[in-house]
Amino acid sequence: MHQDLHFVTFATRDLDAARRFYVDGLGWSPLLDVPGEILFFQSAPGQVLGLFDAVQFAEDLGLEAAPAIAGVTVAHNVGSPDAVRELAAAMLSAGGRVRVAPSPGAFGGIFHAIVEDPNGVVWELAHNPGWRVAEDGTVSFGA
Amino acid sequence: MHQDLHFVTFATRDLDAARRFYVDGLGWSPLLDVPGEILFFQSAPGQVLGLFDAVQFAEDLGLEAAPAIAGVTVAHNVGSPDAVRELAAAMLSAGGRVRVAPSPGAFGGIFHAIVEDPNGVVWELAHNPGWRVAEDGTVSFGA
Repeated sequence: MHQDLHFVTFATRDLDAARRFYVDGLGWSPLLDVPGEILFFQSAPGQVLGLFDAVQFAEDLGLEAAPAIAGVTVAHNVGSPDAVRELAAAMLSAGGRVRVAPSPGAFGGIFHAIVEDPNGVVWELAHNPGWRVAEDGTVSFGA
Repeated sequence: MHQDLHFVTFATRDLDAARRFYVDGLGWSPLLDVPGEILFFQSAPGQVLGLFDAVQFAEDLGLEAAPAIAGVTVAHNVGSPDAVRELAAAMLSAGGRVRVAPSPGAFGGIFHAIVEDPNGVVWELAHNPGWRVAEDGTVSFGA
């Protein structure tokens, strides 16, 4: 099996709030926007992030009720501690909730913040000096 | 903000079961394996999947208990219905649990299966004839 995540899909209770957060607030461009059903964004080369109506998400998995998002986080790296502060502020303005204010991480010179989107997707925003992506997309990261 | 997920991290109750599933069962290569703490795999160009000990995951987020994974799925596309069947069988052999057996999807000529990994990460395995990735990584997909 190739080690590829082609889709990452979150159960989304409020698609309008998601659109305000990602499109209006953060300037993302949807790959496809089907109001009341799903918002798709490209999230890496060859990968799509899907924000899928939570009721339909539950139906597709045979769940009795629309689930809350739990046990998962996503992260976005930026180039400096100030960029962490700026992005955390932008997410707050766009309807996010700051869970950990911009601050030094526990190790490795990381500076980070943790912000939840309006539907409970938890973002870690980080400046990690050891993060490297080669031209072919190969990641390396040190302490 | 660039539209990039650099990390996707799941709270993982049994890292040994995760290692048996992804490394021994499916042949994935870890970017980093810290027993008892975290398993990292590259999951797209410029992106890392982290399977993080659930207790430490909870501590980092200030949660009272290790969370179950909910409200999220990941997907992997393959080239044919038979490849869906083969991958579902491989995941079952590796310790996964089949939730939806390989079968035609509701629309668009999709053929898929849904399999849960040993820690509750829900995978959709799909053959989607409309899925395209351009050389620069740009995704398009039709019905």
